[in-house]
Amino acid sequence: MKKMWSGRFLASASNLLDEFNASIMYDRKLYIEDIEGSLAHAQMLTHQKILTKEELTQITDGLAQVKSEIESGEFVWSIHDEDLHMGIEKRLTAIIGDAGKKLHTARSRNDQVAVDFRRWVLKRNLDIIESLKLLMSEILVVANEHTQTLIPGMTHLQHAQPTNFGFHLCAYLSMFKRDIERLQDSYKRCNVSPLGCAALAGTPHKIDRDMTAKLLGFDSVSVNCLDTVSDRDFALEILFNISTMMMHISRLSEELVMWSSYEFSFIELSDEYSTGSSIMPQKKNPDVPELLRGKTGRVYGSLMGLLTVMKGLPLAYNKDTQEDKEGVFDSVETALISLEILKEAIKTMEVKSHNMQSACSVGHLAATDLADYLVEKCGIPFREAHFITGRAVAKAEELGIDLSDIEFKYLKEIDARIDEDVLEYLVLKNSMNARTSAGGTSTVRTKEQLEFFRKFLKDNKQ
Amino acid sequence: MKKMWSGRFLASASNLLDEFNASIMYDRKLYIEDIEGSLAHAQMLTHQKILTKEELTQITDGLAQVKSEIESGEFVWSIHDEDLHMGIEKRLTAIIGDAGKKLHTARSRNDQVAVDFRRWVLKRNLDIIESLKLLMSEILVVANEHTQTLIPGMTHLQHAQPTNFGFHLCAYLSMFKRDIERLQDSYKRCNVSPLGCAALAGTPHKIDRDMTAKLLGFDSVSVNCLDTVSDRDFALEILFNISTMMMHISRLSEELVMWSSYEFSFIELSDEYSTGSSIMPQKKNPDVPELLRGKTGRVYGSLMGLLTVMKGLPLAYNKDTQEDKEGVFDSVETALISLEILKEAIKTMEVKSHNMQSACSVGHLAATDLADYLVEKCGIPFREAHFITGRAVAKAEELGIDLSDIEFKYLKEIDARIDEDVLEYLVLKNSMNARTSAGGTSTVRTKEQLEFFRKFLKDNKQ
Amino acid sequence: MKKMWSGRFLASASNLLDEFNASIMYDRKLYIEDIEGSLAHAQMLTHQKILTKEELTQITDGLAQVKSEIESGEFVWSIHDEDLHMGIEKRLTAIIGDAGKKLHTARSRNDQVAVDFRRWVLKRNLDIIESLKLLMSEILVVANEHTQTLIPGMTHLQHAQPTNFGFHLCAYLSMFKRDIERLQDSYKRCNVSPLGCAALAGTPHKIDRDMTAKLLGFDSVSVNCLDTVSDRDFALEILFNISTMMMHISRLSEELVMWSSYEFSFIELSDEYSTGSSIMPQKKNPDVPELLRGKTGRVYGSLMGLLTVMKGLPLAYNKDTQEDKEGVFDSVETALISLEILKEAIKTMEVKSHNMQSACSVGHLAATDLADYLVEKCGIPFREAHFITGRAVAKAEELGIDLSDIEFKYLKEIDARIDEDVLEYLVLKNSMNARTSAGGTSTVRTKEQLEFFRKFLKDNKQ
Amino acid sequence: MKKMWSGRFLASASNLLDEFNASIMYDRKLYIEDIEGSLAHAQMLTHQKILTKEELTQITDGLAQVKSEIESGEFVWSIHDEDLHMGIEKRLTAIIGDAGKKLHTARSRNDQVAVDFRRWVLKRNLDIIESLKLLMSEILVVANEHTQTLIPGMTHLQHAQPTNFGFHLCAYLSMFKRDIERLQDSYKRCNVSPLGCAALAGTPHKIDRDMTAKLLGFDSVSVNCLDTVSDRDFALEILFNISTMMMHISRLSEELVMWSSYEFSFIELSDEYSTGSSIMPQKKNPDVPELLRGKTGRVYGSLMGLLTVMKGLPLAYNKDTQEDKEGVFDSVETALISLEILKEAIKTMEVKSHNMQSACSVGHLAATDLADYLVEKCGIPFREAHFITGRAVAKAEELGIDLSDIEFKYLKEIDARIDEDVLEYLVLKNSMNARTSAGGTSTVRTKEQLEFFRKFLKDNKQ
Repeated sequence: MKKMWSGRFLASASNLLDEFNASIMYDRKLYIEDIEGSLAHAQMLTHQKILTKEELTQITDGLAQVKSEIESGEFVWSIHDEDLHMGIEKRLTAIIGDAGKKLHTARSRNDQVAVDFRRWVLKRNLDIIESLKLLMSEILVVANEHTQTLIPGMTHLQHAQPTNFGFHLCAYLSMFKRDIERLQDSYKRCNVSPLGCAALAGTPHKIDRDMTAKLLGFDSVSVNCLDTVSDRDFALEILFNISTMMMHISRLSEELVMWSSYEFSFIELSDEYSTGSSIMPQKKNPDVPELLRGKTGRVYGSLMGLLTVMKGLPLAYNKDTQEDKEGVFDSVETALISLEILKEAIKTMEVKSHNMQSACSVGHLAATDLADYLVEKCGIPFREAHFITGRAVAKAEELGIDLSDIEFKYLKEIDARIDEDVLEYLVLKNSMNARTSAGGTSTVRTKEQLEFFRKFLKDNKQ
Repeated sequence: MKKMWSGRFLASASNLLDEFNASIMYDRKLYIEDIEGSLAHAQMLTHQKILTKEELTQITDGLAQVKSEIESGEFVWSIHDEDLHMGIEKRLTAIIGDAGKKLHTARSRNDQVAVDFRRWVLKRNLDIIESLKLLMSEILVVANEHTQTLIPGMTHLQHAQPTNFGFHLCAYLSMFKRDIERLQDSYKRCNVSPLGCAALAGTPHKIDRDMTAKLLGFDSVSVNCLDTVSDRDFALEILFNISTMMMHISRLSEELVMWSSYEFSFIELSDEYSTGSSIMPQKKNPDVPELLRGKTGRVYGSLMGLLTVMKGLPLAYNKDTQEDKEGVFDSVETALISLEILKEAIKTMEVKSHNMQSACSVGHLAATDLADYLVEKCGIPFREAHFITGRAVAKAEELGIDLSDIEFKYLKEIDARIDEDVLEYLVLKNSMNARTSAGGTSTVRTKEQLEFFRKFLKDNKQ
Repeated sequence: MKKMWSGRFLASASNLLDEFNASIMYDRKLYIEDIEGSLAHAQMLTHQKILTKEELTQITDGLAQVKSEIESGEFVWSIHDEDLHMGIEKRLTAIIGDAGKKLHTARSRNDQVAVDFRRWVLKRNLDIIESLKLLMSEILVVANEHTQTLIPGMTHLQHAQPTNFGFHLCAYLSMFKRDIERLQDSYKRCNVSPLGCAALAGTPHKIDRDMTAKLLGFDSVSVNCLDTVSDRDFALEILFNISTMMMHISRLSEELVMWSSYEFSFIELSDEYSTGSSIMPQKKNPDVPELLRGKTGRVYGSLMGLLTVMKGLPLAYNKDTQEDKEGVFDSVETALISLEILKEAIKTMEVKSHNMQSACSVGHLAATDLADYLVEKCGIPFREAHFITGRAVAKAEELGIDLSDIEFKYLKEIDARIDEDVLEYLVLKNSMNARTSAGGTSTVRTKEQLEFFRKFLKDNKQ
Repeated sequence: MKKMWSGRFLASASNLLDEFNASIMYDRKLYIEDIEGSLAHAQMLTHQKILTKEELTQITDGLAQVKSEIESGEFVWSIHDEDLHMGIEKRLTAIIGDAGKKLHTARSRNDQVAVDFRRWVLKRNLDIIESLKLLMSEILVVANEHTQTLIPGMTHLQHAQPTNFGFHLCAYLSMFKRDIERLQDSYKRCNVSPLGCAALAGTPHKIDRDMTAKLLGFDSVSVNCLDTVSDRDFALEILFNISTMMMHISRLSEELVMWSSYEFSFIELSDEYSTGSSIMPQKKNPDVPELLRGKTGRVYGSLMGLLTVMKGLPLAYNKDTQEDKEGVFDSVETALISLEILKEAIKTMEVKSHNMQSACSVGHLAATDLADYLVEKCGIPFREAHFITGRAVAKAEELGIDLSDIEFKYLKEIDARIDEDVLEYLVLKNSMNARTSAGGTSTVRTKEQLEFFRKFLKDNKQ
């Protein structure tokens, strides 16, 4: 196979090498970015009188034809063309002749791949942000309906204090909001044009990097060419951002799986988003959240993979860097489908409010309220109040009831400073609504939080 | 051992559990943040009339004494106190009595640890930024001296084009600048107060979270308490930022190691930053960059470790999260000492300019210039020019010389369109200086880049 | 600070370098292995007439004194001695003079560290195997008591089929058995002596590597010195083996945490192995399994860290490799304490058999039995049987009962081929005991499995 | 879409779910193992009189047809069939009717996937071992030609001692031998039949697990069904084994890249296994070893990914586990092509013996020999000898020569105990051949090592 760079080579590359070396079978995903990058480059070269207007027209038409051939499936992708850039240029040259050969003036595959990949990441960054917003909107709808639905707030998977389900969901809204903000920061930092860096040191041709940057929608041009052609920070950032986001999704998924169990029965996923068993006909499996939880692994793996690839690489471009794309492609795809399916699963799940509320009357959720009562009403130091409450809980367990159902006389026995108004404190709904500090679970505060996220989404409309 | 929370427990915790469970032996590193957090909390409680002024005075004095005991080494850290928070509170109560027990009103260890750890991370974030700036300043000094020192620009570890050493160092300045910017973004996102979130749902006490946030230097208070007590995104972010930074350092280290070899001999590390061999007296080993390169591993490991810990955790606090600190502590320490020692190694290394320059006359570095000449002066399409140049290179190799030393007649033979003015293009210094596109390697452009980084450092002075 | 290798150095190593470079503060953990290695080396040198008997006596006595100084805490560890080997040799020479200087004949720190670290890993390998066996024994005791205790077997965290708790625990016995076997395989592969490889190429001295190997308990000597001094496969193997083991522990821990929840209430951890809350006196937190689950992260991190360190290192020894120890030390320590505390937690936990059994009557666990009945007794193809059973389950749900409680008439309605003997199949205990295929859950088969593991432990007694 | 398990479901699974949930697009790679597993299962069911002989014939013929449809490309893979097992069974049933529906008697997809995946891994395990042996054979050929070719043995990338290139290659033979042994150990541990475990608890049908195990080539049947259906240790083991192997390959690749640089020029990769530059016609890039080095990252990533997936999963099967396959498939493919291309690159590379040898006369490689001389011939303690040698090296550097070229008088000046016979010790070839300790670099010892590996390959012939 004759390669474009084969001038001084005696033997042609072996087939095995082609198979091993070629990236064309996956980097062709960047064909739009590649063609747009070439168009911008050609326009600039023309403006700088390096190409003639006629050549520009030929190139523009030729690339349009290549694009349409790709989209119709007509285009022949061959590993012998090594990569997307070579594949497209070869076809272009076949179509338009000499002008095609001039297109590569003042650029290198090193900056070309940097442009294509960076722009693809920028676009997908925005796509993920949009999907996150759609998911948040859906969670907001459910949360809004459940600001009074009691659910046991847990630590250590133990009932701790009564909260409401809307408040619980706000925790995930907070996480997804941070995910969006991280992506936005990365977008800004990634939005820098590599075009014109050539192989590693710039070019003697009189190019205008600002012009191509502008044409391609970049905010600015990169400062140092050597760095630019070997920089993959932007790829690491999107991998880390997706990893953190999938970690959040894995936490919600873990809860959805547990809540779907017979033991919890807090929710039921819709039939549409559940699956059955090949052997046990009674089963309804929460495959969606399980798989979401599992997919966290592949994304972590891609992050670790690229960190490994980049470790200890001397400047500038090394072929190792070719390993940057597949992990990012897979992670982005995983992110987008995960967000969509999670949104649908949440939208269509049934919230079993009654079960959530019943669960609150197990586990002495009012214990902290008793302690707070002792501090506030009786002026008992917190640590002592905590100890007294411990004894009240022990009493309730002895009686086989929940603390919220204890009779006054038992409390009085434990500590004479306790008065009958204590019972109001032990009502679970009161307990939940008592937590009115900023960010707290009371319905009023929960609604405030929902409003906050609603505003966030509104302010971040594209 | 009697624990503060032991009210309802029959058997005391076993020693083995204490040993396994206690975090006090490492989280005591947060004692300043813990005491400051308690002071702010106490001031707010007083302002809200939950504590009396006398109690505040007692607490303030008591905490001052605890702090001084810790700093003098008098304080007894015991695994039986489980964690820093318990240890300090117990000692405080021993000193001042009942008021000490009141301090924990309206807070929980869950928000306390969140406050302490977050503030520690915020401070170290700034420390790392400062160290990065000091490193950049030192690199700037070296780069500034070598804007005319030729060095072979490489891709695939093959000589590619002549660049200058100042330009090469600018690549690292670009990386470290991005590292600073990532840390700055994370700082902003991390700077949110968890104090007042209590166990997970807020508190019925009439606290003022804005007041404690302000006292502790936070920008705002967190939006949802449930999220806040289980959020470790800020820890992941600093681990990722350090990982990326260490990756950059590993690349520079790889180059320093290679440049120190007999084969390259581009630099010599100072005796102060080298070590010898126990068996081979002639050796001078670049231990510093090797170890820097190796330390990348431990930081990646800590990132992967915490990502694993957080995967699939249900809300809110789970003991698993206690595993967040050691990896962050170790990574921050690694970052700070790495930056300092790298700075010193660069400051004291000898740049062997002569060897760098000599290396440029091997490998036909002027090849691209010949190709550019063919395009620009002879109007030959780039791909064809590339092919012709390949033949010129082959000729030079046949003659056993570098392309920059080839006689005109041989070029003429290869392609008659070539004129004698081609020779100017093949002079290596000219070749380097010809790359005048933005971000390019020409001395003029390199100086522009140095100025850019100088300005960045000035604008980011603390 | 004067270093042992400082002959040709002009400036002494800076303090910062010492701090950065020194491994002595953690590799001193290997002092026993180092001293034993030196003794074996000295004996061999004496046997080969390279040392005199008098020198050997001096060295033996001197090393005994060094050891006793270390163990009494008298020994001064200083980062200026760089590493354990230098520290001990320096002190030895201070005690015995010239003979101390001769000890390093025909060896290098490169093989010395390989010997010390490898032997430490070999010993800890055995320690972990022993701890695993103790854990297995404890699990066997509990499993043995519960071969008739019904517990819902789950897939997707959904009740699937009735099993017994002893059978459930056998799953973990299987995992821990594999962990032991992996460690045994690694032990065998690791048990190869590096001593005598010197710096990288062997030595001209007439040494006897077989003799030192034998003295130190190694099975054989390594084949190629260059490989030996840079090989860290044995460290990776123990990290992987611990990672897999901790993954198993994390699965059991996840179950222990869930089973401790109010929702499941399948077990209760003893007070000794639980902790309380600083704010919620009613809480009893399963900290131990949570922390065990979390500690999986640090071990994964250490594995990933060392894999990163080793990636792309040229031969032979590079300073990067010094980063091999801390992660292994930490992981081994984590493994040992985790195994011990898990053993104690299991030994002291209360199994709430009644709750486990009750849970079995929820979720139509007999569904597969109905399907099996349809296949076996009525000759209905499995896929059709599966479908019919689905309808029976739907009927039971409609009636608000579990399938195991359904009346015969409803089944008959659904499919006329069903006979009254079906009811026997639907009794949960029968269902469990029906699974008599090899490895199945029936009590008989479970007892067989327990016997198998008992035999394994007996056969593997040290 | 009607699913096989859809009996009790009201709404059919959404398309989005199918897309997200289906594994058929990648697990179809297991079709041979799946069909063979079904055949063995059917034979056993027939032997046990659960199927009739006629049914067996139908199933056998039907599966043969399915297989041929798959291999001809006729078979329609659809994500609506969810996974390979469903896809094949559905087609089988379409072809043969009711008998197809009976095939799933006494098994579940849980054990089916375990059988298929485990057998695939077993086969690939052997394939990788074979490829490793072929690579070793090729390295042996090259090593055999170069047992007298001097090359500087390095530590810290600094010339240390003269070795020979054959000896250097033996280091890699040692690594690849360990890789084979690890794979062999894992093979043995993996070779256990899951078939008959059914969903998780075994089955009431009278199956014969030993028979299916034997038919499928397994050594034994698994001990506990619950463990078996959720065990993925075998997948982790192959990922770890490949990771360690790729780490070794990355080290050799790093050396190949460096040796290909102008600075080293120790080897030249053949044109067939090199590539050129799109912009610099003189470049010959060692893409193959670079990409090999980079591919280490993806394999590490897959290992980390699966470790993450398995962390904290409750028993038994969870959908998360579906994420086990893609990483293993990709890693195995990476391993196989990497081994093949590395073998070819080594086979076709040119060893520049002359350059290797010349490099040895730089860096005072004879320094250790001088020290050894001082110890052996002059009876000077090693540490003092080391110091004296340091001064000799300094003298040589002052004179601008290598220590191997120093005149006797200078040595005499440094230490009067030195005699003229020292010069013999300083000849580089002598120095190399002096290292005759076991595993050492002398040509004699190197040949011994080559013989050892030759024997290993012979003994391990399949």
